[in-house]
Amino acid sequence: MILLNDEFNIELKEITEKIDKIIDYYMPEGNGLPQKTIFDSMKYTLSAGGKRIRGAIMASFCKLCGGNITDVSPFIAAIEMIHAYSLIHDDLPCMDDDDLRRGKPTNHKVFGEAIAVLSGDGLLNLAFETVLNNMPNNDKTYRSLKELAAASGIYGMVGGQVIDIESENKKVDLTTLCEMHEKKTGALFYAAAKIGCIMGGGTEKQIEDGGKYAKKIGLLFQITDDLLDVYGDSKMLGKNTGQDLKKNKSTFVSILGIAGASQYANKCYEEAIESLKEFENPKFLINLTKYLLQRCK
Amino acid sequence: MILLNDEFNIELKEITEKIDKIIDYYMPEGNGLPQKTIFDSMKYTLSAGGKRIRGAIMASFCKLCGGNITDVSPFIAAIEMIHAYSLIHDDLPCMDDDDLRRGKPTNHKVFGEAIAVLSGDGLLNLAFETVLNNMPNNDKTYRSLKELAAASGIYGMVGGQVIDIESENKKVDLTTLCEMHEKKTGALFYAAAKIGCIMGGGTEKQIEDGGKYAKKIGLLFQITDDLLDVYGDSKMLGKNTGQDLKKNKSTFVSILGIAGASQYANKCYEEAIESLKEFENPKFLINLTKYLLQRCK
Repeated sequence: MILLNDEFNIELKEITEKIDKIIDYYMPEGNGLPQKTIFDSMKYTLSAGGKRIRGAIMASFCKLCGGNITDVSPFIAAIEMIHAYSLIHDDLPCMDDDDLRRGKPTNHKVFGEAIAVLSGDGLLNLAFETVLNNMPNNDKTYRSLKELAAASGIYGMVGGQVIDIESENKKVDLTTLCEMHEKKTGALFYAAAKIGCIMGGGTEKQIEDGGKYAKKIGLLFQITDDLLDVYGDSKMLGKNTGQDLKKNKSTFVSILGIAGASQYANKCYEEAIESLKEFENPKFLINLTKYLLQRCK
Repeated sequence: MILLNDEFNIELKEITEKIDKIIDYYMPEGNGLPQKTIFDSMKYTLSAGGKRIRGAIMASFCKLCGGNITDVSPFIAAIEMIHAYSLIHDDLPCMDDDDLRRGKPTNHKVFGEAIAVLSGDGLLNLAFETVLNNMPNNDKTYRSLKELAAASGIYGMVGGQVIDIESENKKVDLTTLCEMHEKKTGALFYAAAKIGCIMGGGTEKQIEDGGKYAKKIGLLFQITDDLLDVYGDSKMLGKNTGQDLKKNKSTFVSILGIAGASQYANKCYEEAIESLKEFENPKFLINLTKYLLQRCK
């Protein structure tokens, strides 16, 4: 994995640490409650690290539109909670049946399937609670809540997961694969960017372009994920590789080949960068896009 | 099962039909979408009937506070969606492992476990989408959304389910049993009543008393449910009976005996009725409370 320059690495680390602190702040401990287990289980996955890319995109767009990270903190926690819930449910035996996530046993391996199902439910719900209980009610909040709900539901992430399940052991075409990933991964990226722009006070054009950028890096992220599954280092990634082939899944690599997938990643990269023109000095996002492109090289 | 008078039966049937129509209106079909399956799966459970007690409580309190059913329609659909999601996840093999619900095969029996998990996720999410996309943003909506989210999450329904799971094969005391049911069943009833009062324009005292009433009938509902599990008619109930004993669950019957549980049901009934004093002519709710008390007789 080629990393960029030290400056970007430091900046990414800084933002990840900031987001981790935000998540810690909004994730309750449940001390003294008889249902304490579920708090521990949710925290186990939510606080298991990761680069917090969704949160970083949101914070970055908010800043680029003139806002501050504190203007979106509850939304940052919320989107990472939704991401964490999707990982827990995705890893379940009846779904992807994964034992390992970010180098640790998956949630149901530690807490059992029943608590894992409920932890996912609890995190999705907590995402909305976190925003509702910590944001003042105004048009920006309400609009952002709509974006969040649209992205995570049946028209967004959950819808993408359904297409994913129904595509197993089937040969799907590039259009279907793109539609699946636009929903499954892209939708949360899209909401992250738009919410960042909305809460930061961006123009309608900025909100729209933020969304466009996010859709492109959502695809880019997935293409490089598929490439990493072919020749990534399991230990470095913290999850098993070679899973797509094992599960007979259609991927960008299986449809386009390694060279074709790399080429498509480059195209998404170019289009993502193009969408940043409305923003002044989007250095961090440019570097993030480069990072997503290069992580499989 | 002794039913009340014809008048109440007609009124309950009318409100159930109204709520079914509201649910149909807000439940999208997903026609033409590649993830159409999940729409069918969600609808399978959401539209499988039931008395719509949560929706009926909400509609009734709204009317008693001077509002109209149209003032709360999206919230009625939302609370029934949340209830339906909880049934789907509750019935999963890793949870209660039930094959039969309202006389039909449970969701995962028809659609498979993966789609059932996602349908639950989808319905919870859709509940928030339905309100956000169909209610104007104002203080009443925002406050009601907070009530909804609080009731369905880790401090409410999900929390109750966790206590339930952890109580299996354990002897729990009456306090724990009440706490579990106050969360697991009572919380949604509580939110239904409060949202009805809030959206109907009720006074703070009415909102509070509506909540008190709902907590009591939540308990009443559960006690009579436990009694029905002992000597109810499986065919009439549309689900298997004798499950609590089979699963070695602590119930109001196992702790208090049949006579003690019946007595406790009467006490909840009295306290529920007492909480309705702030409302003018709450005939439907009084009859509903009687119905909940008498359904196990």
